[in-house]
Amino acid sequence: MSAAPIRVGVIGLGTVGQGVLRLLKDNAAEIARRVGRPLLVTHAAARDPAKPRDCDLSGVSVVTDPMTVAREADVDIVVELIGGISPARELIEAAVGRGKPVVTANKALLAEDGNRVFAAARRGGVSIAFEAAVAGGIPVIKAIREGLAGNRIERLAGIINGTCNYILTQMQEKGQSFADALRDAQRLGYAEADPTFDIEGLDAAHKLTILASIAFGMPLDAGSVTTEGITRVTPQDIQIAQVFGYRIKLLGIAKRGDAGVELRVHPTLVPETSLLAKVDGVLNSVLVRGNAVGEVGLYGRGAGGDATASAVIADLVDLARGLGADPSHAVPALAFQPDAVQPLPVLPMSAIASAFYLRLKVADEAGVLSKLTAILAAHEISVEAILQREPQGNEDAHVALITSVVRQERFDHALVEMLRLPFVREGAACLRVEKFD
Amino acid sequence: MSAAPIRVGVIGLGTVGQGVLRLLKDNAAEIARRVGRPLLVTHAAARDPAKPRDCDLSGVSVVTDPMTVAREADVDIVVELIGGISPARELIEAAVGRGKPVVTANKALLAEDGNRVFAAARRGGVSIAFEAAVAGGIPVIKAIREGLAGNRIERLAGIINGTCNYILTQMQEKGQSFADALRDAQRLGYAEADPTFDIEGLDAAHKLTILASIAFGMPLDAGSVTTEGITRVTPQDIQIAQVFGYRIKLLGIAKRGDAGVELRVHPTLVPETSLLAKVDGVLNSVLVRGNAVGEVGLYGRGAGGDATASAVIADLVDLARGLGADPSHAVPALAFQPDAVQPLPVLPMSAIASAFYLRLKVADEAGVLSKLTAILAAHEISVEAILQREPQGNEDAHVALITSVVRQERFDHALVEMLRLPFVREGAACLRVEKFD
Repeated sequence: MSAAPIRVGVIGLGTVGQGVLRLLKDNAAEIARRVGRPLLVTHAAARDPAKPRDCDLSGVSVVTDPMTVAREADVDIVVELIGGISPARELIEAAVGRGKPVVTANKALLAEDGNRVFAAARRGGVSIAFEAAVAGGIPVIKAIREGLAGNRIERLAGIINGTCNYILTQMQEKGQSFADALRDAQRLGYAEADPTFDIEGLDAAHKLTILASIAFGMPLDAGSVTTEGITRVTPQDIQIAQVFGYRIKLLGIAKRGDAGVELRVHPTLVPETSLLAKVDGVLNSVLVRGNAVGEVGLYGRGAGGDATASAVIADLVDLARGLGADPSHAVPALAFQPDAVQPLPVLPMSAIASAFYLRLKVADEAGVLSKLTAILAAHEISVEAILQREPQGNEDAHVALITSVVRQERFDHALVEMLRLPFVREGAACLRVEKFD
Repeated sequence: MSAAPIRVGVIGLGTVGQGVLRLLKDNAAEIARRVGRPLLVTHAAARDPAKPRDCDLSGVSVVTDPMTVAREADVDIVVELIGGISPARELIEAAVGRGKPVVTANKALLAEDGNRVFAAARRGGVSIAFEAAVAGGIPVIKAIREGLAGNRIERLAGIINGTCNYILTQMQEKGQSFADALRDAQRLGYAEADPTFDIEGLDAAHKLTILASIAFGMPLDAGSVTTEGITRVTPQDIQIAQVFGYRIKLLGIAKRGDAGVELRVHPTLVPETSLLAKVDGVLNSVLVRGNAVGEVGLYGRGAGGDATASAVIADLVDLARGLGADPSHAVPALAFQPDAVQPLPVLPMSAIASAFYLRLKVADEAGVLSKLTAILAAHEISVEAILQREPQGNEDAHVALITSVVRQERFDHALVEMLRLPFVREGAACLRVEKFD
């Protein structure tokens, strides 16, 4: 316990960076008991070093130029917390190029350019750890990459964006519109002033890219995820879903089949009895199915300074233990050995089978149900549940239904025919349904 | 990928051992892509080598004497799956003494004698991995020991015995008696012919011992867990708990406070809205609270050949990666460095505070409620909920209540006074309530 401290350089002193400094101090004794040596932040970089912060920076050399921290000879491990592609990528490459392992929470960089930075780390003989990039404090990267290493992972599904889950939960519980729930989320700091990245599903798509790579052993390719956000989810659909026994959640879904993999982020109806349906507010949860273990679920806080800092420090502890070890003993970045990471065909959405939820605005006339169901029957699509609502006030009448599992292609053909029916008005809603059985 | 295989010796070819052999074959390509070398079972020991088994033993040298496998020079890693204290302990000591790392699922041995076998492993310069010892395929050891290493763990609570959870779920869902539910569990293979070890909470206590050690950095001491099984839980209490908004689960609970730690296994009322309440049947779940991450939950299959084999293989992959590495880089067995593992005072139950559920059989007369509540008030115990049931058929009348959080000592004093009241009959039931808020 008297061994020299491991010197950490932190780039970025935002919420997570401050959390890392605070926790390394508060939990210093506990962490040193685990590692055998203290972990000490000696260097940090921040745009405005003088700004008041919720952490103790005494003894820390704080500079404005992050590159000086990435290159600092007296730093053993670098923590990158500024986010975004550049200069984060150049900072990480500079650190690993000097043989310094890196911890990052930067899902955008890894999803967009991870293959390149991991290759740089291999050349430097060090690791880049990224538990904090997905699902905040929940150790989901470690669970999939190491804890389920005996499995062929068949699929995973997760609530991996706390902002969207908060908004959908508010819409569910208070009957709020999307716009009102978003405004509340912004007021409470759960959504950014420009919320696009979260509400359009892009953040979830980055996280799903990372999860799919470590689950299936495929290279990172953010562009291969089909992404749909939550902006068009209405309180009405949430309410009808509830009548059918479902909740609407933004899920990231990755499945592996014989024909290829499915990679998709979209609002999804999940049975109210499933554990994902019960993960509310800013919590995150990931379900993983392996061919040996069956279904394993994890949940917890997916965001927030301390929860994310918890994951950063877990990575620091892992890297601290590995300092000076032959890199061939390290866990490979993407779970599979670099030469065993193989591209897999990604299925187009038209080839994906799922159950569908459909809500149509219809004129209040006789024969509506029979004409709609006739079209579905003609395409051999069964209906699992159907609900017709009389017009209320100046609202149109509605028909909502849930289909059996069907290839999207076939469903789309039926949908086009239904939309052409003279009694169907503008404004249909269509969502996917996943049952996890 | 052309590297020589890692040679594994498996001691014990029961359900889990067969699962390990089956999965290492079925998932061979996937596992080799992760490790960089194939994992191959070359040696095995079984009482009856010729017995038909659900796995392919071709190419495996199967012997009856387990010690020859533990000592076999041509084995790189030994897997111990026979359970029990002896000869499992001697086998593990023989293997680690020869520098062979060991994977074990043996919670009884680790809880009772783990300090000794881990010390032997340190002397041998190798690790003993034991993910499969707790909660089957759920990677809970890894999550606590590594994934939450940045936290001071404050408490954990888990459903860690599938047999008990199955029985309690049946009693809940079908209104069965304990005896009937146990008989069903035995018929389905979820309970052993002699179910004592499970239903008296001893198996859960062993698992809790291990979890508490890695969470708090204290030596293994199975004797320090206060243990109460589920044999006295009645359908009536399950039903009344439900009226109060609770489910009854057998929980293992470990808490760390300023005065010491609580280590206890007992049937517990948990709010029906909590995620533990929703973990039914043979599933397991563990909730962990860290001072950084907040609450993290894991769930999945806690038993069964393939789920447990999944954990064994994850350990094999970890150990395979570490073969030949300096042992100072390894994760310490109990999460904390051996010289930092420190005994903590374990609180006696009398000093533990909790809410209580109490059901009393009472004569059907006036003034019952006022006399009972007067005693509670005199001991400054508030009542959160109370229910009085008229006598039904030849049943007595009942009063059931839930108290505020109170030290057991004080509750016991009140209880003694209540039991002395002339209208109180034999046959009270008293259970603890945990709210996880």
